[in-house]
Amino acid sequence: MVFILENGVSIEAVTAFRKEFEDAGFSTIYAPGTEHTAICLLGNTAAVDMDTIVATHPIVAYGRRVTEQYKAAGRTVHPDDTVIRVGNAQFGGGAFTVIAGPCSVENEEQIQLVAESVKKSGAKVFRGGAFKPRTSPYSFQGLGTEGLSLLSHAKKQTGLPLISEVMNQTQLPLFEDVDIIQIGARNMQNFDLLKEVGKIGKPVLLKRGLCNTLEEFLMSAEYIMASGNEQVILCERGIRTFETATRNTLDLAGAVLLKEKSHLPVIVDPSHAAGIRSLVAPMTRAAIAVGVDGVMIETHNNPAKALCDGAQSLDLEQFDTLMQDIKRRVEFEGRSL
Amino acid sequence: MVFILENGVSIEAVTAFRKEFEDAGFSTIYAPGTEHTAICLLGNTAAVDMDTIVATHPIVAYGRRVTEQYKAAGRTVHPDDTVIRVGNAQFGGGAFTVIAGPCSVENEEQIQLVAESVKKSGAKVFRGGAFKPRTSPYSFQGLGTEGLSLLSHAKKQTGLPLISEVMNQTQLPLFEDVDIIQIGARNMQNFDLLKEVGKIGKPVLLKRGLCNTLEEFLMSAEYIMASGNEQVILCERGIRTFETATRNTLDLAGAVLLKEKSHLPVIVDPSHAAGIRSLVAPMTRAAIAVGVDGVMIETHNNPAKALCDGAQSLDLEQFDTLMQDIKRRVEFEGRSL
Amino acid sequence: MVFILENGVSIEAVTAFRKEFEDAGFSTIYAPGTEHTAICLLGNTAAVDMDTIVATHPIVAYGRRVTEQYKAAGRTVHPDDTVIRVGNAQFGGGAFTVIAGPCSVENEEQIQLVAESVKKSGAKVFRGGAFKPRTSPYSFQGLGTEGLSLLSHAKKQTGLPLISEVMNQTQLPLFEDVDIIQIGARNMQNFDLLKEVGKIGKPVLLKRGLCNTLEEFLMSAEYIMASGNEQVILCERGIRTFETATRNTLDLAGAVLLKEKSHLPVIVDPSHAAGIRSLVAPMTRAAIAVGVDGVMIETHNNPAKALCDGAQSLDLEQFDTLMQDIKRRVEFEGRSL
Amino acid sequence: MVFILENGVSIEAVTAFRKEFEDAGFSTIYAPGTEHTAICLLGNTAAVDMDTIVATHPIVAYGRRVTEQYKAAGRTVHPDDTVIRVGNAQFGGGAFTVIAGPCSVENEEQIQLVAESVKKSGAKVFRGGAFKPRTSPYSFQGLGTEGLSLLSHAKKQTGLPLISEVMNQTQLPLFEDVDIIQIGARNMQNFDLLKEVGKIGKPVLLKRGLCNTLEEFLMSAEYIMASGNEQVILCERGIRTFETATRNTLDLAGAVLLKEKSHLPVIVDPSHAAGIRSLVAPMTRAAIAVGVDGVMIETHNNPAKALCDGAQSLDLEQFDTLMQDIKRRVEFEGRSL
Repeated sequence: MVFILENGVSIEAVTAFRKEFEDAGFSTIYAPGTEHTAICLLGNTAAVDMDTIVATHPIVAYGRRVTEQYKAAGRTVHPDDTVIRVGNAQFGGGAFTVIAGPCSVENEEQIQLVAESVKKSGAKVFRGGAFKPRTSPYSFQGLGTEGLSLLSHAKKQTGLPLISEVMNQTQLPLFEDVDIIQIGARNMQNFDLLKEVGKIGKPVLLKRGLCNTLEEFLMSAEYIMASGNEQVILCERGIRTFETATRNTLDLAGAVLLKEKSHLPVIVDPSHAAGIRSLVAPMTRAAIAVGVDGVMIETHNNPAKALCDGAQSLDLEQFDTLMQDIKRRVEFEGRSL
Repeated sequence: MVFILENGVSIEAVTAFRKEFEDAGFSTIYAPGTEHTAICLLGNTAAVDMDTIVATHPIVAYGRRVTEQYKAAGRTVHPDDTVIRVGNAQFGGGAFTVIAGPCSVENEEQIQLVAESVKKSGAKVFRGGAFKPRTSPYSFQGLGTEGLSLLSHAKKQTGLPLISEVMNQTQLPLFEDVDIIQIGARNMQNFDLLKEVGKIGKPVLLKRGLCNTLEEFLMSAEYIMASGNEQVILCERGIRTFETATRNTLDLAGAVLLKEKSHLPVIVDPSHAAGIRSLVAPMTRAAIAVGVDGVMIETHNNPAKALCDGAQSLDLEQFDTLMQDIKRRVEFEGRSL
Repeated sequence: MVFILENGVSIEAVTAFRKEFEDAGFSTIYAPGTEHTAICLLGNTAAVDMDTIVATHPIVAYGRRVTEQYKAAGRTVHPDDTVIRVGNAQFGGGAFTVIAGPCSVENEEQIQLVAESVKKSGAKVFRGGAFKPRTSPYSFQGLGTEGLSLLSHAKKQTGLPLISEVMNQTQLPLFEDVDIIQIGARNMQNFDLLKEVGKIGKPVLLKRGLCNTLEEFLMSAEYIMASGNEQVILCERGIRTFETATRNTLDLAGAVLLKEKSHLPVIVDPSHAAGIRSLVAPMTRAAIAVGVDGVMIETHNNPAKALCDGAQSLDLEQFDTLMQDIKRRVEFEGRSL
Repeated sequence: MVFILENGVSIEAVTAFRKEFEDAGFSTIYAPGTEHTAICLLGNTAAVDMDTIVATHPIVAYGRRVTEQYKAAGRTVHPDDTVIRVGNAQFGGGAFTVIAGPCSVENEEQIQLVAESVKKSGAKVFRGGAFKPRTSPYSFQGLGTEGLSLLSHAKKQTGLPLISEVMNQTQLPLFEDVDIIQIGARNMQNFDLLKEVGKIGKPVLLKRGLCNTLEEFLMSAEYIMASGNEQVILCERGIRTFETATRNTLDLAGAVLLKEKSHLPVIVDPSHAAGIRSLVAPMTRAAIAVGVDGVMIETHNNPAKALCDGAQSLDLEQFDTLMQDIKRRVEFEGRSL
């Protein structure tokens, strides 16, 4: 149930209104917007008499029942785009932001080289995996804390904010210097982890699970938001289908639909979706054209020798060439990098 | 097995070479190109001694075994893009071509109105279904031959070439005035129908089946080509996945991969892929950005009252607005409409 | 809309009742049953006043709106199992019937050998493909009419009724001696073919499409029934999923659900579903245990040299061993072979 | 790489052999069997000269390279069935074991009632969820530690061993009284959790992920085993496909293939697979018929009021009736309950 407030209501009146319902056992979402400000009631609202509340609270203009399960993530309660800022990077609100870096942190030289190069080309956030979810226990599992140190060092050198994947909640204290916490596709429904990252004060990039619907994806964002963290970036990275010619099937129409349904920023990961280097550039061009808020591109100084995902990684020159094209296209769309 | 010919070989020498192998029970594909001309041998070539053939035929520069199953549709034998021309429309070779029209032919007024309007907006081919494949026997099945007459009339009025779906081979004689024969998704592996349209001298638009791989798609094109018709246009129209928020999942990366693997023109049908009107424009923009050869867009004078697929149809004004945007984007890409 | 008739209504009264509605433009389904007899009205019944009809027609006990789209195939109108008899074989009504034979008819010796052997082992229907739907135009396409002749000859020798796949409606006249017409998975939504086999007076075995839902499957049966042929046997043969370890994924729960929703006989094809010989016996045991009406098993005199689907074919001895086990199990279930 | 040992080799010789390779940086798996005993080398064995090792170690009969990625879970290294015993329950080795209980622990009365009833009917393990993975943060999340206490109490009353789902590794200390740790489908690739349950000395029931292949499933079992815990029970619980008539699609052929490929016990969860009460009994019968090692069945004293998954739960009487049928069938198969 959402209550749209009259214009010009004081913050004290809003606080009193929320307290009244929170004392009665409900949670509330406060959603200030350009057109109107709304308060959403969460919990079992079946017995709540909406009309009486509207009639007895002068600060309320009108009320509405919210049919979507994703109250906090949906546009019904919160119609304006959420904008998330990290360093010089902006997600949502018209920017098109490029995250780049290798699949996994391998050594200091690699990380320095790639970080400086992608910064020069125009990337705004640097990615690198220190803890790697691998299908086989016998595959390279990442450098762990040492990997995080190398990332911190690269951040100091370049000024680029960092994104890295957390695999379980006990690792969170290690991620102090990481600016955006990534939740991987396999953890999209690791609800306890979602609750924990809901308690930290930094942005979370949530990847769509391999076989999760858009509705489930938004419900996982809702877990993070319901725990108190509204800085969630959604990342479409391909779903698993019967087709095996590509690693996954990029659901680009799904990404557009996410932006229709939700106010959260939405980016696309063409590298994991396709799994094939030659498809990264065309899918990036498509992402710009449909209007999502950015891309995350695997970039490596020597893809042929990468410890993971080499086949889908661009080398530094290919990434630079792509960035030139991205700039031209973002300008054409009237947006900013 | 493919033989690349020396430059400047006479057509008589080519004919003699092909006859030699056809007399021995093989089929041959003749693939003239800008860089080289090739002859492909089809059949059981396991026992053929390639080296001896190269050594004993001076017109042959070198030979190669073709590992793809799709000999005729693949780029190995035929590296240059196939270009198909119908009226003023061109598929392949840099053009971006828009097919528009209603899902089904409903009545004369509708067809005239829509045909004239989409022509004015810039569509190059007019579509309309006379025979409709419907899940339920109790749903509208199309106007049949009367529908084809109405299409012919619209063609006379507007000069737009026609595309319409054939549902079985006995209907082919009725399609004399139809310029491009459409094979629907459900018939992609109706192999007898593929063989029949392989014998007619006009372009065939082949839609990808709901759960068919790209390899199977190319093999179905191969059926048509192996029967003698090389004018095949491939159409990606979304595949069936677990996601139900959209009607199907548009496999745009698959469309790009098709163009890598095959020289045939590839278009996209955003209307059927998404099943939601608001996604048609963004997916069309994406199609232009990735470099496919065109789109097919369901357009109706009154989508709310359409006898089928109204929810995914644009009205005439929406289509016109989209065409303005398409023109701007096609120009940006350095291509022609 | 379905009208349940009073007991003991004369056939003349029934005919008059149907005629009244057929004259008004509706189709009717007549469904006599053990508990009651029903007449179903097909067409646009939105404006039909059910209560008035009940009140004014003494032969009608009561009426009900049918919510399923599959009026003829569903149990709402027709609660009793349909039983289809072909030679000594019975589909539905408690029998468990085994169809056996090779994927494709290869030569006279093979067909005679396999037919006699599977008959001796206890198969009740002989299968063999004369027209083969193959992904590649360069694969063996079947012996065609010669294959049908060989099947006829085997029928004369063994007395086993025949089942064989028709690939398009122009072939139907060739199938005079074939007792059950098979519609393959790829043709499940070849609606024109469904309408044609709806006009012939013999049983049709309809295979589920690779990516078709149970609802679509029943709607395709509805096409055949709405055209006048109520002898439809449904065959679950595995669906296409992301899993590649098996050829397809057998949806056995789906087969059980089909029997809940529909009165038509349901059989299972474990050979195509699994694509692996060792899984045929366990899946056959599962089919008996869940209560479907039979199985179709690919059996070959020399699977290692089969022209198609050898990897999933049992040899004659393996089939005989399986049949002994089937007999023991069918007896345990209190059913008859 | 696996080394098959000569018969009658002393345990000291085995230990010395393993130590030699562990000192060189490899892990080893020790697999004693009825026919032979094997030692498997894990790690980068590309440079290991197998022939020299065989020639220089008299205790080794012969060596073989293992092509499967799942060395510990596969049958190549470990051909005999693994048998896991918990209380009176046995998984593997010919037994058919039934786990029963409610989806979630709701209150003391419910737990006592259901535990006593399912024990009386013949269940050997009691299930109940204390921590519930729910798509929505607003749904009932389980009673948590209080739920575990109620389970412990039921265990004391009935003597039935317990199985309950752990959602993250920090909860493991709370599970001291739980006999089998369940890893849910959404956590099948939560690799850190797998590593942690690999360090505890009790059986783990690992559920297949909604869209994970059989190979990935076995690799997740491999994670647990490579961390030192060889007591892994695999549970097929349905995969996500395009079909929506059932909650998931039970991959029963996949369960059979798992038993072919792996020596680990395999059970089936028909409740979650189907999501429909009427399908639980037939799918249980199918599970017995194909030869898997047990089933897990959701059972509730009042399904209509269950806090989760009521639609797929049997009531106590339905469960008792099913158990009678299970007994009759297990006896028919020559196996024991």
